[in-house]
Amino acid sequence: MNVGAGSKLGVLAGSGKLPEQIINYCRHVGRPCFIIAIEGQTDPEIVEGTEHTWLRLGAGEKILKALRDAGVAEVVMAGAIRRPSLSDLRPDMYTASFLIRTGAAALGDDGLLRAVVGEIEDRFGLSVVGVDAVLPEILAPEGRLSGPEPDEQAMADIRRGFDVARGLGALDVGQGVVVQQGIVLAVEASEGTDAMLERCGFLARPGLGGVLVKARKPEQEKRVDVPTVGPETVRAAAAAGLRGIAVEAGASLIVDRATTIAAAEAAEIFLIGIGSFDDGGS
Amino acid sequence: MNVGAGSKLGVLAGSGKLPEQIINYCRHVGRPCFIIAIEGQTDPEIVEGTEHTWLRLGAGEKILKALRDAGVAEVVMAGAIRRPSLSDLRPDMYTASFLIRTGAAALGDDGLLRAVVGEIEDRFGLSVVGVDAVLPEILAPEGRLSGPEPDEQAMADIRRGFDVARGLGALDVGQGVVVQQGIVLAVEASEGTDAMLERCGFLARPGLGGVLVKARKPEQEKRVDVPTVGPETVRAAAAAGLRGIAVEAGASLIVDRATTIAAAEAAEIFLIGIGSFDDGGS
Repeated sequence: MNVGAGSKLGVLAGSGKLPEQIINYCRHVGRPCFIIAIEGQTDPEIVEGTEHTWLRLGAGEKILKALRDAGVAEVVMAGAIRRPSLSDLRPDMYTASFLIRTGAAALGDDGLLRAVVGEIEDRFGLSVVGVDAVLPEILAPEGRLSGPEPDEQAMADIRRGFDVARGLGALDVGQGVVVQQGIVLAVEASEGTDAMLERCGFLARPGLGGVLVKARKPEQEKRVDVPTVGPETVRAAAAAGLRGIAVEAGASLIVDRATTIAAAEAAEIFLIGIGSFDDGGS
Repeated sequence: MNVGAGSKLGVLAGSGKLPEQIINYCRHVGRPCFIIAIEGQTDPEIVEGTEHTWLRLGAGEKILKALRDAGVAEVVMAGAIRRPSLSDLRPDMYTASFLIRTGAAALGDDGLLRAVVGEIEDRFGLSVVGVDAVLPEILAPEGRLSGPEPDEQAMADIRRGFDVARGLGALDVGQGVVVQQGIVLAVEASEGTDAMLERCGFLARPGLGGVLVKARKPEQEKRVDVPTVGPETVRAAAAAGLRGIAVEAGASLIVDRATTIAAAEAAEIFLIGIGSFDDGGS
């Protein structure tokens, strides 16, 4: 079975625009792909015209068998997948046994995703790849992509944001934080980035606007659940009165880069990839 | 000048019910007190009938002189004080010089409060005391105060909540966190505990409800900004579908304990003070 750019790609499709971008790219370069659409999570519109099957997240055995039967060698997990409660999950026997065997109830998001990746690779012989191995130019580059140069206050807020985001990430809580004038306005937990941004409009103080920072969790499995921004993030950040967005260069994804940058330019907010801080402060 | 239980007490009154409880207690035991009411923050109803003066937070010199002129030896800071932007603060010369001298713009809430306490004590010779030095029985005791005994899942959520709250506190972000079934539903930053609880109704998963945990920041100045719960916290927690509230025993305040416990009993949620975890896990 071929592995790599020419082989058939399995896509475990969560919510949002990222699965669609992968499907479109595969179509563009002529790479065959097979979608596992998750009931209640995948956007139904994006799978039309592409080989796919709809399954419950709890139907772990069917999901893995479907990928194998479709002749897939590589699997990518793309888009946010909500972690359901056990009663919503209705796990099949195989999934229940996996959850018990791995002690999933006690695992954070990180540990659980790590266990899922291990299971797919070790038990089913499929290779799990990151979105950045499939899509070129999806990783955030270093440097400013749009908008004005961040001023001194913005850079101080970005730095504080990275400190807090990394601390939160180490606790396996979330990836996003909003800082304005040195104050941590909001921190993302299970509500997601857009919902966090929504409340920042109310929390904002007068004067210079804040920044959104997204960074990878220090211990994070690098192939799944990578911090992501896209056109919606830009619109929500602008609506909240923020002056910009900073992401970790090489470790976050920018969905639909052209549209995202155009949205940021239109809103006159900066989008910047941070590699490291020059003075070694962070 | 007398210091201690009989001397005149200065109260820097933030928002909420705590300043009122102090005023009522002083009246009850016959201790004279003098209130600094902060424009836009202190509830005007609570100062009626007690010696007080209204001042802007930015009028630092007038505040300290008013305390001294009133013959106060001990000062207590009670209730939440919102940190305004510089333009809202309109600092007087003295306050501006204090802010510049201490590098306040770069300080977190913790560092700023520490600097304020130092200023009051070293420059004005007043003694800053904690709310618990003024009000008896305000500190949360160890053990269950209301509601059912937390079950195994609740205890696991409480433990995870303390881990996250301490991590957040070390970052000087916030004191509150909501955990349900091992998942961190929400984390408190500048919005305050009640606003955080409000969104937990939407974020909650089916099945066993979550818990609110409040803990002191590890580096926190012990006399100010102590984690506080009260009847409103209980009502908001119950409305969010939580099963209980856990606070750090001996290091958090329970405002109006009788009313708070009665509200928790009525809502059938537990209120528990955690000293340490028996197995040394946290």
